[in-house]
Amino acid sequence: MEDYHKPDQQTLQALKDTANRLRISSIKATTAAGSGHPTSCCSAAEIMSVLFFHTMRYKVQDPRNASNDRFVLSKRQAFTDVATGSLGQGLGAACGMAYTGKFFDRASYRVYCLLGDGELSEGSVWEAMAFAGFYKLDNLVAIFDVNRLGQSDPAPLQHHVEIYQKRCEAFGWHAIIVDGHSVEELCKAFGQAKHQPTAIIAKTFKGRGISGVEDKESWHGKPLPKNMAEQVIMEIDDKIQNKKKLSPALPEEDAPIVNIRNIKMPSPPTYKVGEKWATRKAYGVALAKLGHANDRVIALDGDTKNSTFSELFKKEHPSRYIECYIAEQNMVSIAVGCATRDRTVAFASTFATFFTRAFDQIRMAAISESNINLCGSHCGVSIGEDGPSQMGLEDLSMFRAIPNATVFYPSDAVATERAVEIAANTKGICFIRTSRPENPVIYNNNEDFHIGQAKVVLKSKDDQVTVIGAGVTLHEALAAAEQLRKEKIFIRVIDPFTIKPLDKKTILENARATKGRIITVEDHYHEGGIGEAVCAAVVGEPGITVHRLAVSHVPRSGKSAELLRMFGIDKDAIVQAVKMAASKSRNAE
Amino acid sequence: MEDYHKPDQQTLQALKDTANRLRISSIKATTAAGSGHPTSCCSAAEIMSVLFFHTMRYKVQDPRNASNDRFVLSKRQAFTDVATGSLGQGLGAACGMAYTGKFFDRASYRVYCLLGDGELSEGSVWEAMAFAGFYKLDNLVAIFDVNRLGQSDPAPLQHHVEIYQKRCEAFGWHAIIVDGHSVEELCKAFGQAKHQPTAIIAKTFKGRGISGVEDKESWHGKPLPKNMAEQVIMEIDDKIQNKKKLSPALPEEDAPIVNIRNIKMPSPPTYKVGEKWATRKAYGVALAKLGHANDRVIALDGDTKNSTFSELFKKEHPSRYIECYIAEQNMVSIAVGCATRDRTVAFASTFATFFTRAFDQIRMAAISESNINLCGSHCGVSIGEDGPSQMGLEDLSMFRAIPNATVFYPSDAVATERAVEIAANTKGICFIRTSRPENPVIYNNNEDFHIGQAKVVLKSKDDQVTVIGAGVTLHEALAAAEQLRKEKIFIRVIDPFTIKPLDKKTILENARATKGRIITVEDHYHEGGIGEAVCAAVVGEPGITVHRLAVSHVPRSGKSAELLRMFGIDKDAIVQAVKMAASKSRNAE
Repeated sequence: MEDYHKPDQQTLQALKDTANRLRISSIKATTAAGSGHPTSCCSAAEIMSVLFFHTMRYKVQDPRNASNDRFVLSKRQAFTDVATGSLGQGLGAACGMAYTGKFFDRASYRVYCLLGDGELSEGSVWEAMAFAGFYKLDNLVAIFDVNRLGQSDPAPLQHHVEIYQKRCEAFGWHAIIVDGHSVEELCKAFGQAKHQPTAIIAKTFKGRGISGVEDKESWHGKPLPKNMAEQVIMEIDDKIQNKKKLSPALPEEDAPIVNIRNIKMPSPPTYKVGEKWATRKAYGVALAKLGHANDRVIALDGDTKNSTFSELFKKEHPSRYIECYIAEQNMVSIAVGCATRDRTVAFASTFATFFTRAFDQIRMAAISESNINLCGSHCGVSIGEDGPSQMGLEDLSMFRAIPNATVFYPSDAVATERAVEIAANTKGICFIRTSRPENPVIYNNNEDFHIGQAKVVLKSKDDQVTVIGAGVTLHEALAAAEQLRKEKIFIRVIDPFTIKPLDKKTILENARATKGRIITVEDHYHEGGIGEAVCAAVVGEPGITVHRLAVSHVPRSGKSAELLRMFGIDKDAIVQAVKMAASKSRNAE
Repeated sequence: MEDYHKPDQQTLQALKDTANRLRISSIKATTAAGSGHPTSCCSAAEIMSVLFFHTMRYKVQDPRNASNDRFVLSKRQAFTDVATGSLGQGLGAACGMAYTGKFFDRASYRVYCLLGDGELSEGSVWEAMAFAGFYKLDNLVAIFDVNRLGQSDPAPLQHHVEIYQKRCEAFGWHAIIVDGHSVEELCKAFGQAKHQPTAIIAKTFKGRGISGVEDKESWHGKPLPKNMAEQVIMEIDDKIQNKKKLSPALPEEDAPIVNIRNIKMPSPPTYKVGEKWATRKAYGVALAKLGHANDRVIALDGDTKNSTFSELFKKEHPSRYIECYIAEQNMVSIAVGCATRDRTVAFASTFATFFTRAFDQIRMAAISESNINLCGSHCGVSIGEDGPSQMGLEDLSMFRAIPNATVFYPSDAVATERAVEIAANTKGICFIRTSRPENPVIYNNNEDFHIGQAKVVLKSKDDQVTVIGAGVTLHEALAAAEQLRKEKIFIRVIDPFTIKPLDKKTILENARATKGRIITVEDHYHEGGIGEAVCAAVVGEPGITVHRLAVSHVPRSGKSAELLRMFGIDKDAIVQAVKMAASKSRNAE
């Protein structure tokens, strides 16, 4: 245990004053806005006062300084580093910050996270608890503001703080119960650091200090009426003594200077056209290579590294790989935490479909303007035998609906390596969709790729239809072209490279050159995928038609080629669709 | 503790034999298929043998009998009642079954759930653990198959079974550690029922019984090569004595007969055209009413019942309301469990955007062919001050990508009541999207609604554009029509009622009657919403144009009307878009 110096009486009174001033501010602000959570603020007033004016070390004038202690307010409302408001996500982000502080920055800053008791029902909190316990994040302090009341009812454990303590201990934490309205107890508890993460379980009362509201149900998320607010503010103001001014301690400024801009691969790709590579493996190769370009590139995975091939990164850069185990929500939150204040460039991978587990975390990461890179392997029915639970068939839809996301869907190893490099330098959420089957390399190593620029991979003056595919279906389209050529039917084949943004210009130009006919073919459900993206891009353009080939219902287990055939997204289905499109328009002419 | 009758030696040997036969079957099947998880099967062989041939009571010939004990295999692979394979979801479904058995069926069947240690990292497991502990589900037994090895690495707690025990106890469970390969210990442990859920923490070895594979890494999900399989099978076969045949005990058959077909509202809606109602409130009114039609209608919520208005159901049917607290993943799994074997009609509600938390559970529910109804309130920027974390702007995209889902987006109280009634009688996943603002009732109480049938709510022979809106934006469209009428510009207004399936026929007919011009307007992001659904439906139809109004970036907090205006989905934006569409085509004519 570290030394604990008890603050003098004047300091304690000043901390109490600060807590009461916070109460007054929250009541004033929410009553003026006619919206907000004054009762939740009142339960945490002493906690915030002690944290910000006694315990934490930071520069007031430089709130984003890399060496400052971090604070994450998980219980509703946004703070600087990450947006919260969707409950149960703050602790995961705090874990990412603490992991970065301990293992990458090796600096002395600490991370504090304030959680409400209601959100402790979220499983994501316990994923983060297990993570912090496993990695012994002794620079992390979680404060549970146990104010007993949720939004619509008491929280399940009410004021049984001893049960929270048991749970924390079972997850590898040092857990201390305190009176959350006693600045003395709080100061003392924050002084008790251990060689493990610390949970301060603060018994508090919602609406503390507001007569007639404290510990009462049905005041959640409601501002006080104006008259009531004035009366309450007077009462609280009477308790304030104003004898001493507090200022926070300064940080040690021992966080290293980091530069994660303009990260370039140390060398171009080294594939040979025609060689067979799964893009999931090319992802691992590329990431390992990128790790040599910048020592702040890190990889995370959820016990699937031998499938996503992030293990190739781990082999070359073991100290920069974070095993997150089977906890995808937490993995995304850890990545968000690691990426705050531009400390790292994080790449997190799992099966594409398991990112559905973390949709809420990804959505909130976009709101936080977080820069993280996510790679989803095993997309579509082409994974084969593992069955529908393992097939990513809704991931394009999910990531397209994330604001400002970039959705890469590389079709060969060269494109995959370029996607990884571009993602590392692109703001916002980047998603890279990789495939399990091995397909031939089609691009030269010096091929140039850009976000929103499609590639025309096959073209002749006699092309009758433009076929748009990506990943395995691009290769099916090329095989279809080969077969059709024997019958003197020629098609144009387009690789979009990024599905969001989509290269509308190239698609339209080529569609117009092929009598307006577009066929899209994708290893994904119809909804929200390539086909719908193309429809939305070209709708209303005169003379353009779009025929969509996609997976139309829940698949089953089978061999990859069998399933592509069964769901009508293989070479033969494309051949048939091309012939139908060609004959239809002929009849119409 | 209940009586525990130790099985005789012959029975114990027969249970061992059964375990070894299971080993042989799993090796044979996976080697023949060239895919599968023989090592995981081997770790659980004794557990399965004792459960199915000693502990569980069921009719072999009638596996879906309502009175049978239930079994959920959470650690990969599908069983009858729910599909698993996405890890960490089985226990939640098992909790739903156990809750149903204890509180709705009040029957003696018990529920057994087998979990792997790898999936215990998923937070959803701890949501379920907390749920079972809170509701004291003493008819629920979870078996943790702690075989130490995950897919790519050892699980974080390896063989530290005492830590699992501590965690279980902290979550309100009775936890027993056993040697998972000892049929004696397993028989005894299963006999120890308590007045709380029971966890059997079974220390096992992955690949147990396979020489050279047992407890070794890198054999996850791999079948044995043929030669090796033959040798191993011989070795295991040698241990089988075949002296006694086992058959399971029969169930008590005390589960009540249940009929959930053809549930009709006891009376038509009782709204008045022009009255202002929020559809979220109409949902609560409708659900409470439906509860009187059938006593198997149940409601679930995640501590938002005073916002989603499921509290109206709770008030009238308190014994059929399940408070799931802030744990959306588990709430969906509980609903899935409650709905198995057609025991209940489950309606689960929270804010629309918080269903993103449960996307993986919803996806798996579709694969399980589960019949559950989900209501998401607070869609879009129109919720106002609570900010972007609370706004559902990707829920249409998410639910549209669920196979066979029905997506209702009712625009007034009457339509909402009908949506609730139809959902109760519709197979698959039904999603009902409700809104926070109050808008006028526009339909008569006798209006007939059907899935996939849009309503033309405003129509004249002079209409120049067809505007498609839903929820708040339908009302903005009607207001726009009112304003445009003063300038002698007439528009047709369509309410799609269901976004999936979409009424392509009505949309096309009306678009053709309005010079091919369609404008869609929605309180949702562009991707995967109404606009894209319409584009996909009409693309390629000659002369049809679609202009889409939707939310284009992360919103902020503000007043509802301000935000509708800021994001260009209010009356004025529609007026402007209509005028532009009309003038554009005039110029082109």
